[in-house]
Amino acid sequence: MDKITMAEGPLTAEELQKLDAYWRAALYLCVGMIYLKGNPLLTEPLAFDDIKKRLLGHWGSDSGQAFTWIHLNRLIKKYDLNMIFISGPGHGAPASLANAYLEGTYSEVYPDISEDREGLRKFFKQFSFPGGIGSHCTPETPGSIHEGGELGYSLSHAFGAAFDNPDLIVAVMVGDGEAETGPLAASWNSNKFLNPVRDGAVLPILHLNGYKIANPTVMGRMSPKQLESLFIGYGYKPYFVEGSEPEAVHRTMAQTLDTVIAEIKEIQRKARTGELAQFPEWPVIILRTPKGWRGPEEIAGHKIEDFWRAHQVPFDVGENPANLKLLEDWLRSYKPEELFDKNGRLIQELKDLAPAGLRRMSANPVANGGLLRKPLRLPDFRDYAVEVAAPGVKLAENTYTLGTFLRDAMRNNMTSFRIFCPDEMASNRLTAIYEVTKKTWLETIRPEDADGGELSPDGRVMELLSEHTLEGWLEGYLLSGRHGVFASYEAFIHVIDSMFNQHAKWLAKCREVPWRAAVASLNILVTSTVWRQDHNGFSHQDPGFLDVVTNKSPDVTRIYLPPDANCLLSVMDHSLRSTDYINVIVADKKPHLQYLNMDEAIKHCSKGIGIWDWASNDQGSDPDVVIACAGDVATMEALAATSLLREHFAGIKIRFVNVVDLFKLMPQSEHPHGLSDRDFNSLFTPDKPVVFNFHGYPWLIHKLTYRRSNQKNIHVRGYKEQGNINTPLELAMLNQTDRFNLAIDVIDRVPRLQTAGAHVKEWLKDQIIENTNYAYENGIDKPEITGWKWPYESGAGIK
Amino acid sequence: MDKITMAEGPLTAEELQKLDAYWRAALYLCVGMIYLKGNPLLTEPLAFDDIKKRLLGHWGSDSGQAFTWIHLNRLIKKYDLNMIFISGPGHGAPASLANAYLEGTYSEVYPDISEDREGLRKFFKQFSFPGGIGSHCTPETPGSIHEGGELGYSLSHAFGAAFDNPDLIVAVMVGDGEAETGPLAASWNSNKFLNPVRDGAVLPILHLNGYKIANPTVMGRMSPKQLESLFIGYGYKPYFVEGSEPEAVHRTMAQTLDTVIAEIKEIQRKARTGELAQFPEWPVIILRTPKGWRGPEEIAGHKIEDFWRAHQVPFDVGENPANLKLLEDWLRSYKPEELFDKNGRLIQELKDLAPAGLRRMSANPVANGGLLRKPLRLPDFRDYAVEVAAPGVKLAENTYTLGTFLRDAMRNNMTSFRIFCPDEMASNRLTAIYEVTKKTWLETIRPEDADGGELSPDGRVMELLSEHTLEGWLEGYLLSGRHGVFASYEAFIHVIDSMFNQHAKWLAKCREVPWRAAVASLNILVTSTVWRQDHNGFSHQDPGFLDVVTNKSPDVTRIYLPPDANCLLSVMDHSLRSTDYINVIVADKKPHLQYLNMDEAIKHCSKGIGIWDWASNDQGSDPDVVIACAGDVATMEALAATSLLREHFAGIKIRFVNVVDLFKLMPQSEHPHGLSDRDFNSLFTPDKPVVFNFHGYPWLIHKLTYRRSNQKNIHVRGYKEQGNINTPLELAMLNQTDRFNLAIDVIDRVPRLQTAGAHVKEWLKDQIIENTNYAYENGIDKPEITGWKWPYESGAGIK
Repeated sequence: MDKITMAEGPLTAEELQKLDAYWRAALYLCVGMIYLKGNPLLTEPLAFDDIKKRLLGHWGSDSGQAFTWIHLNRLIKKYDLNMIFISGPGHGAPASLANAYLEGTYSEVYPDISEDREGLRKFFKQFSFPGGIGSHCTPETPGSIHEGGELGYSLSHAFGAAFDNPDLIVAVMVGDGEAETGPLAASWNSNKFLNPVRDGAVLPILHLNGYKIANPTVMGRMSPKQLESLFIGYGYKPYFVEGSEPEAVHRTMAQTLDTVIAEIKEIQRKARTGELAQFPEWPVIILRTPKGWRGPEEIAGHKIEDFWRAHQVPFDVGENPANLKLLEDWLRSYKPEELFDKNGRLIQELKDLAPAGLRRMSANPVANGGLLRKPLRLPDFRDYAVEVAAPGVKLAENTYTLGTFLRDAMRNNMTSFRIFCPDEMASNRLTAIYEVTKKTWLETIRPEDADGGELSPDGRVMELLSEHTLEGWLEGYLLSGRHGVFASYEAFIHVIDSMFNQHAKWLAKCREVPWRAAVASLNILVTSTVWRQDHNGFSHQDPGFLDVVTNKSPDVTRIYLPPDANCLLSVMDHSLRSTDYINVIVADKKPHLQYLNMDEAIKHCSKGIGIWDWASNDQGSDPDVVIACAGDVATMEALAATSLLREHFAGIKIRFVNVVDLFKLMPQSEHPHGLSDRDFNSLFTPDKPVVFNFHGYPWLIHKLTYRRSNQKNIHVRGYKEQGNINTPLELAMLNQTDRFNLAIDVIDRVPRLQTAGAHVKEWLKDQIIENTNYAYENGIDKPEITGWKWPYESGAGIK
Repeated sequence: MDKITMAEGPLTAEELQKLDAYWRAALYLCVGMIYLKGNPLLTEPLAFDDIKKRLLGHWGSDSGQAFTWIHLNRLIKKYDLNMIFISGPGHGAPASLANAYLEGTYSEVYPDISEDREGLRKFFKQFSFPGGIGSHCTPETPGSIHEGGELGYSLSHAFGAAFDNPDLIVAVMVGDGEAETGPLAASWNSNKFLNPVRDGAVLPILHLNGYKIANPTVMGRMSPKQLESLFIGYGYKPYFVEGSEPEAVHRTMAQTLDTVIAEIKEIQRKARTGELAQFPEWPVIILRTPKGWRGPEEIAGHKIEDFWRAHQVPFDVGENPANLKLLEDWLRSYKPEELFDKNGRLIQELKDLAPAGLRRMSANPVANGGLLRKPLRLPDFRDYAVEVAAPGVKLAENTYTLGTFLRDAMRNNMTSFRIFCPDEMASNRLTAIYEVTKKTWLETIRPEDADGGELSPDGRVMELLSEHTLEGWLEGYLLSGRHGVFASYEAFIHVIDSMFNQHAKWLAKCREVPWRAAVASLNILVTSTVWRQDHNGFSHQDPGFLDVVTNKSPDVTRIYLPPDANCLLSVMDHSLRSTDYINVIVADKKPHLQYLNMDEAIKHCSKGIGIWDWASNDQGSDPDVVIACAGDVATMEALAATSLLREHFAGIKIRFVNVVDLFKLMPQSEHPHGLSDRDFNSLFTPDKPVVFNFHGYPWLIHKLTYRRSNQKNIHVRGYKEQGNINTPLELAMLNQTDRFNLAIDVIDRVPRLQTAGAHVKEWLKDQIIENTNYAYENGIDKPEITGWKWPYESGAGIK
């Protein structure tokens, strides 16, 4: 290493020796996990048969992480801290697993992996082994809320856990590989959104071990001056702990941690007594230690320690006796015989170094947040109902209405509920919330901000122009036992596709881990949708997030397309009460027609799919066609098509089906919400044509319904990548989801209309041309389109 | 503003007055675009009828951007610079459009929008108007390679354009909203990958106008000291230009630009004469000017200028005479009568301020990079063929083989071809490339790096652990006329889903813009695929990127799943020669069986789909079943299933179909590569059972084939979110894509096997249990699975 910072520090010689011994115990376990399947205490000479056939796992970051964990243990005990640990570096789970095992937590949650020789053998063998556990801090890892399989989210998860947890300190190790990612880079700004009065603290420890899988890291080769400048620029106070000589680094680390804890406590004290003028410079530790620290220095002339070659498994054993010896020497270098008693249990003297009970980072309930989760105190969503005297006549802003419900949900849960949105709350019409809380803002607030700025250090609405950071915050907030909603423009929710994937996988895997308590669902409100991006143009038009969602486990995914405000209220209430799901709710922000009164909405949303009798006229007979729809705009155009058809064809029998819960379309065997074939056929008929107007990409409906017996008759319209600057109708017409094209689709599919309908079809085609011309000329749609209402009284359609 | 920096600077009073006049002309156009459809020169008093009915577009960043453009013009002329402009702030296109119009470029590419009164009227009206153009710098915008609809990519696009363009300076305005995003935050590190010898320069201008759509920006409220520290930390040399008083800011901007150009030239001179020791501190300009600068200061008691209320359209006109007056006053404040002659053309004195010809940023061919694109000089890919004497017998590493071809492609194109990869080139087995070029590295290089580090300032392989930055670099590189490949782990390519969407939309729209020349395709090599993430576990298993790709325009999307090395070579050669596509090539990095010799591979890949006669035994008769597959691992398991079936059922007739070009499955009417129904049926039969083993999520095949007449008989297997730490076979078995489950699928679907096959089915089920147990016990698959080979001689299968 370039530089060694020496300090005497707070450690006595005995403490230092014990800390180092504990660390050696952890390192021994790390190496054991990677290599061994037998002979866990090296009570016999190491044999080829003791070694796993397929060596997996990563050594590189383990030692620095284990070192840090152990030093944090000292701190927890010294100051009786409530602390959790988030491990950013990928594949670095051995450090967390080793500590969970040494602290006894592992054996508590997995009694089979006991604190003895046989338990240790199993503990080693199961690591990165079929039927065992992964090499990331997966849900199976006690104390983990962050898997780290995909890099970039450790810091935002840490801040999410700290929000509204005033007593908590989240220690988060950020790998210098991870630090190159966009999501991580953006999340350094999280410090501007942490209120030291009501929130806990985050202690980032940037682990500069200098290398990724096969390259140096950018930060690892920045000069100390640059690094210092960078973190001061981000508003932190950087502390450097650097070195490779264990004793020196132990001393510096202990001293530094004492210093930063004192600073954290002082910031909190000042803030909580009103002495703090502006947002504080929280400490960050930059820990520069060698990659693969205390592992093999060199093998066959190749540098290992402090080089990228230490990143994964440093060397293979195979049938090579020299390498077997190397491994044995490496393992014995930690002196396991001094660390474990003859039964294989960590000796009591070292055991005593770890905190006890729930103070153990591996056992802190914050990291199994479902244990701490209390249901939201929700107002009765029925009280926010839009009055609907007749269907399809009145306009209301669905998201605005939702905002009034969320406002009071917020009012009732001012320490356990937050809303996250990338600079779009006002744009998305969720402004009623500001009546009870503002937007979190810790930087300067100016006088003019009083005019609609809605900023406050106490605000509970989190707005930052980074979908990544917001999603990471929310995930951390949920996994530590709280509740929230993420509202985003539909097109740009794709920015967090990969985070969604990872969270869905986390939730799915949690279901297999019996000790994980259920956490609140991740609720994503997808708004400013494709059909009202006519003015923002092509780049803002993308309803494909739903396609991504449908690839993940049916156990954890839910998609709702409420057609109006009352349905949106019902669906959101349901989502906020649910656990362990990702609920994706699609609802546009513009004024939309209202169809169902609250009772009807509740019934409709409970079923998730249903015939709208008032829009149908097939009662008592087979329909000529089923017109189905999902999504607010899609529903309106499908209704308008229905009325056009009934106007032009007196005898036509139409059944109108609306879908709120998209997974109803899947077979029961594929998704728990799926309809039985019998129920599906009772709605869609076994053999009649179905014209389905869908909010998203049309083929998603085919993907969900391909097993249905009537699927060949299901004709789907949806967004098909046609758009620019358009009027709303024009955008629909370009994608053939408009009333005229839908009516043509029906004429083309109902045999008895094919002759009779020819002139109507011509008229419909003329309408398309005429409305396009009108839009080009006037920049808006005709008033009769913009102001369109459902023309029939309830029941009047039955002829 | 807090601070005004005054400086006399290089401007004479006359120059200053002219610059300001030119700027006013641009601002007049910006406001005109947002509001007017008639009366473009205000030759009449402004009337309600002159105003668009629907006001769209964003004013907030226009003035600062137009100001910067004009100052850059001065610089271009003074120093004869080759410069392009990238506009980061979203919806800020009016600034670029106004300048393109004033420079005459707009009328050159759209003769209909002439430089006269009528042209100006059309220019105004078309903006953000149906049938017109968008409010971002869409492909229709001359001089643009960056739409900016989705925020975050301006800076990486800028660096991408600068690579291998030693003469070019890319001026890039980064909005302070955009600066909050992850992708943008990560891309500041791009300076560590820009070689001043062979690359051009990037001049970032961070535009701190302080507000987003409804919030202050994080950077806008950072202290000047923090900002300075941050950029020094990133390795830049920050220059501040701050103020609201035009004259002062003109003078400071002019002086600052003269300074930074001198610095850029000095860095380049030093670097190119060998005087530069390490990577230089490139200048960055921090431009702090009011949002909506020189627009209305206040309306109805609300602050507009220098506040978020200036972000979009500052006020509506409607039927309000006061607002009409306000608008007229605003427009007239720029004194159009002094700026345009009576025909509506910018007066010559101002015209002369802009650079001429291709030096105009609106006309620089770099921003229509297809004009500069030269086809790659590719070696003959046949020369890299793996010898295949018999199908399915020999193992080879497909990506390693590809690497040898890419190596020589690189050797032949050392100034126009780069490879981008997030720290995975070695992991992905593409290391042969290092024989001709290294990895770009401008930070310190240490002695130990010589041992496999492969670092060099001249390296042409770009490795950074940010998929966002890499993708942004590559897009910028391609759009400015060069070629490249992005190689990434399959699961984590989802990180750039949204960037993919935006680039696909850009390419699709370019097809409608006649003056845009074709650019090289974006080639994405998806490797380290789901089926060989058995050791990395569940978080690394996600083949869903293909689903995202299939939502985008068929005009620009291509997906290839080459089953072996020779097919991969053929497909990559084809992709590297293609233009205006996004080619997604899925190929795993591990050793795989080889099936086709080069001639066969070329034939197979040209067709994109085909029957493998050597694996089929239905020649001359109808098959009992079609076994189809797409993907390397999927192909091997499908072949193994075929051999199991033929072994157990002497008379069974199997047709074996392999798919390379996934879009062959779609109908001809939906994708240009789609098969006709007749051709589809000739492969898959009109009515026989098809068991399809797919690389990705199984329902994607249903989505592509739902219109096929035989679709109800197509049974698809693929990844269905089942996995953890497994052996390869176990992972396949969990998802039922393994040989045993596929054989069972066939037995279940071929009527005459259903009785005869019962005992075989039991045996197959036993195999599944036995192999699972073996994996759990040994951590590896049985040798006969790992070493499995296709058992029949070519043709021997015909019975």
